[in-house]
Amino acid sequence: MKVIDLNSDVGESFGAYKLGRDEDVIKYITSANIACGWHAGDPLVMDKTVKMAVEHGVGVGAHPGYPDLLGFGRRNMNCSTEDIKNYLIYQIGALEAFCKVHGTRLCHVKPHGALYLTAVENKEVARAVAEAIMSVNPDLFYVALAGAKGELMRTIGQEVGLKVVYEAFPDRAYTHEGNLVSRNQPGAVIKDPDVVSKRALKMAKEGKVIAVDGTTVPMEVQTLCVHGDTPTAVDLVKSIRAVLEADGVEVKPMIEFV
Amino acid sequence: MKVIDLNSDVGESFGAYKLGRDEDVIKYITSANIACGWHAGDPLVMDKTVKMAVEHGVGVGAHPGYPDLLGFGRRNMNCSTEDIKNYLIYQIGALEAFCKVHGTRLCHVKPHGALYLTAVENKEVARAVAEAIMSVNPDLFYVALAGAKGELMRTIGQEVGLKVVYEAFPDRAYTHEGNLVSRNQPGAVIKDPDVVSKRALKMAKEGKVIAVDGTTVPMEVQTLCVHGDTPTAVDLVKSIRAVLEADGVEVKPMIEFV
Amino acid sequence: MKVIDLNSDVGESFGAYKLGRDEDVIKYITSANIACGWHAGDPLVMDKTVKMAVEHGVGVGAHPGYPDLLGFGRRNMNCSTEDIKNYLIYQIGALEAFCKVHGTRLCHVKPHGALYLTAVENKEVARAVAEAIMSVNPDLFYVALAGAKGELMRTIGQEVGLKVVYEAFPDRAYTHEGNLVSRNQPGAVIKDPDVVSKRALKMAKEGKVIAVDGTTVPMEVQTLCVHGDTPTAVDLVKSIRAVLEADGVEVKPMIEFV
Amino acid sequence: MKVIDLNSDVGESFGAYKLGRDEDVIKYITSANIACGWHAGDPLVMDKTVKMAVEHGVGVGAHPGYPDLLGFGRRNMNCSTEDIKNYLIYQIGALEAFCKVHGTRLCHVKPHGALYLTAVENKEVARAVAEAIMSVNPDLFYVALAGAKGELMRTIGQEVGLKVVYEAFPDRAYTHEGNLVSRNQPGAVIKDPDVVSKRALKMAKEGKVIAVDGTTVPMEVQTLCVHGDTPTAVDLVKSIRAVLEADGVEVKPMIEFV
Repeated sequence: MKVIDLNSDVGESFGAYKLGRDEDVIKYITSANIACGWHAGDPLVMDKTVKMAVEHGVGVGAHPGYPDLLGFGRRNMNCSTEDIKNYLIYQIGALEAFCKVHGTRLCHVKPHGALYLTAVENKEVARAVAEAIMSVNPDLFYVALAGAKGELMRTIGQEVGLKVVYEAFPDRAYTHEGNLVSRNQPGAVIKDPDVVSKRALKMAKEGKVIAVDGTTVPMEVQTLCVHGDTPTAVDLVKSIRAVLEADGVEVKPMIEFV
Repeated sequence: MKVIDLNSDVGESFGAYKLGRDEDVIKYITSANIACGWHAGDPLVMDKTVKMAVEHGVGVGAHPGYPDLLGFGRRNMNCSTEDIKNYLIYQIGALEAFCKVHGTRLCHVKPHGALYLTAVENKEVARAVAEAIMSVNPDLFYVALAGAKGELMRTIGQEVGLKVVYEAFPDRAYTHEGNLVSRNQPGAVIKDPDVVSKRALKMAKEGKVIAVDGTTVPMEVQTLCVHGDTPTAVDLVKSIRAVLEADGVEVKPMIEFV
Repeated sequence: MKVIDLNSDVGESFGAYKLGRDEDVIKYITSANIACGWHAGDPLVMDKTVKMAVEHGVGVGAHPGYPDLLGFGRRNMNCSTEDIKNYLIYQIGALEAFCKVHGTRLCHVKPHGALYLTAVENKEVARAVAEAIMSVNPDLFYVALAGAKGELMRTIGQEVGLKVVYEAFPDRAYTHEGNLVSRNQPGAVIKDPDVVSKRALKMAKEGKVIAVDGTTVPMEVQTLCVHGDTPTAVDLVKSIRAVLEADGVEVKPMIEFV
Repeated sequence: MKVIDLNSDVGESFGAYKLGRDEDVIKYITSANIACGWHAGDPLVMDKTVKMAVEHGVGVGAHPGYPDLLGFGRRNMNCSTEDIKNYLIYQIGALEAFCKVHGTRLCHVKPHGALYLTAVENKEVARAVAEAIMSVNPDLFYVALAGAKGELMRTIGQEVGLKVVYEAFPDRAYTHEGNLVSRNQPGAVIKDPDVVSKRALKMAKEGKVIAVDGTTVPMEVQTLCVHGDTPTAVDLVKSIRAVLEADGVEVKPMIEFV
């Protein structure tokens, strides 16, 4: 029987600013990437989000980012690897404290936004992220991009000694080489819920994705990234989960099967 | 044989901004209160400071403060107790991660600046601080003000279940009631190194302090707060330590004897 | 013929975080209090909001606050008057630059949240706010609380040499003495649109408010504060404006008649 | 008679953190680049620094940077040109308010650190900077890099309609092409005060610099950048000014002669 994890970025509210439908999406996902207060999130939001994840049996992960609340961590910053390493140790530690408070363990780390994209492209950054995780807790999983382009990031995570979890995006178009089509391209983001749900199923059950040129590309996947920023997005997650389970795919936290 | 701890606030540099003579003062103290990035400090400074403390056999403590880098945590902020509790969990967790990285344990927590002063006056704040510490790690010591005025803060720490460490200030004048003379008053801060060293010795050896009216006031003390912000301040710490040891007082980390 | 201004806090979004229905409420108000990036707002939001105000013929005002984005400027901070004065000069100047860019003038300043409330209570803070405004531009209006309790703030503003604009809150209950009923009290905030619209009319047309004890209290008013944070709030503003104009009250920017 | 301006970055302290010897260097320079609170500086520092500049007859300029206090504005951030433009409008406006308070005018704008270097390389960024300046006040001077490599930045500034001021660095080595030798290269920064003073004189008097290969390179220069971060740096500025004046070069604010 096939098994898959559904992860989503949550805990991105800040002070008076509310972002996302965390209370809704948390019901359908199995792993939560929780912002750590640098690009989004704050201590009260972290507390509330970890508590909510625990209540729903959802695995808790850290979602650290660049020190750029104004840019939501989406802009690359030319930080040194020493900077990045220490920024991640700090953020992971902060979230781990809330895990202790709520009697759970921190399961995984997934870098956010521009930091994730830079780690995909740049091996020094990929290594800094992996070493930060390793230095705080060698049992933490490192969520990294599935497909050809993610190989660098994944290999470095494994070299450093971490368990690496392969992540794919059912609502994103892929090239024949198994890379994400750039968001600048038309059709990069797929919006039809039926199509996305079927892609999720193909990824989870067959380890395959249909590329933009119609070819079928093999892709090892252990977690699917889904979104909960709008009511529509939440409906999509609900649909994905229903389609997966209806077809016999078991949906559970990465921590239980990777 | 009498024993005492010497604590100092360190790790207060931030980015390009250097503050304090940490490399010097660390040689003479036994417990370090390390800023956690909110009122001062940053991840690189935290990393370097924890490393330095470990190298010198100095106990590592968290020194959390209000979210006010611009005011260096010295201005009171009307935060709710829920805010304070979560802000401290966050900061303690962040520092604890650097302890793991450097193979040491976090020993104590001492709130910084306006937060410390508010915890002395306000029992809800004192409790929020104590509960934050307890919820992250019940083995952490809570450094609280010695003397009459600190009783509220200390009692609440003990009620919550923490080991409370009594802190006095050898360079500060005390009233007949055993309270600190306000900094606004003339003579509140004592500058003569000989006088300060002798006061430190009297506190450590006899558990007593000479008040401004000349009377001798009993004061249970386990740690003395000293400063390392200038070369002169560092010389004073060196002198205090020498005077204590010359008179048979053992100076060692609070974690080893409280 | 009676004339009144309708002011609202706008421009409170920040980066990826959207707050308020500025595009809607701007259609019905005559003066905009625009956040200046400290408790809310950012340069892109300021640019967009000033532009929008100009397009709708709405007077542009600065809405400066404490340096507390995390607390949305709603928590008192024990800043010195020198701090407050300079923080306001900074924020007013920043907004004034966007006024130049869009070919308009800055009309008024209204302190935000905890800073407003502190200025009502504390004459040194009221004076620091007034002096900051005066030092940047003596033609700026100082929006201050109408009613008995606002007298201190208004008098100081006038002493400093500013034109002071009297502000009342049609959706807030008032005491017999003409003070706002504390938000902690039941009934402090009035939600029925008809009641609020009628109170607005009574304030604008007769310079009176019905207090919680049923008595009629005289209150000189030049601007009414309204809210645009929800669709319902926007509907209420629309209703207030319609009721005012239907009864012959002219609604226009304070800058044109105070 | 030849004339030159000496500019220096000042006002880089922040809250409790002091940086630079502003009180000393201000005596020898003729134009001050004042940090605007984003990468360094704060409202109290801005107030104090503008006041000090006015007292010494030094021209006041804005020194805006990226929103990166932690990195002191030295790390490139992948901001959009819309971001950059608005960030600069904000910072320039904030400083201009302090100029009004102290009865002076804002004279020039010089982007800081990574933003300056990016403006040198990237024409969209150079244009965003120039347009921001132009939109706030078309009379402001735009300080841009002298030499071959600065041509892009200078040309765009002129196209936008600004008066561009050519800046050179007497303590930096130049290539045969008139470009700065990268700081990574040995000998990039020249430390001998005599050599630096003579280079300053050659730049100011002859419009020439001796390149690393010994050739003489022509370079049109109107302002020389000097540093005041250490006592030694201040001595060097003093020496440069003395050497220039001893040789008949008039040293005065760019605003008076460009």
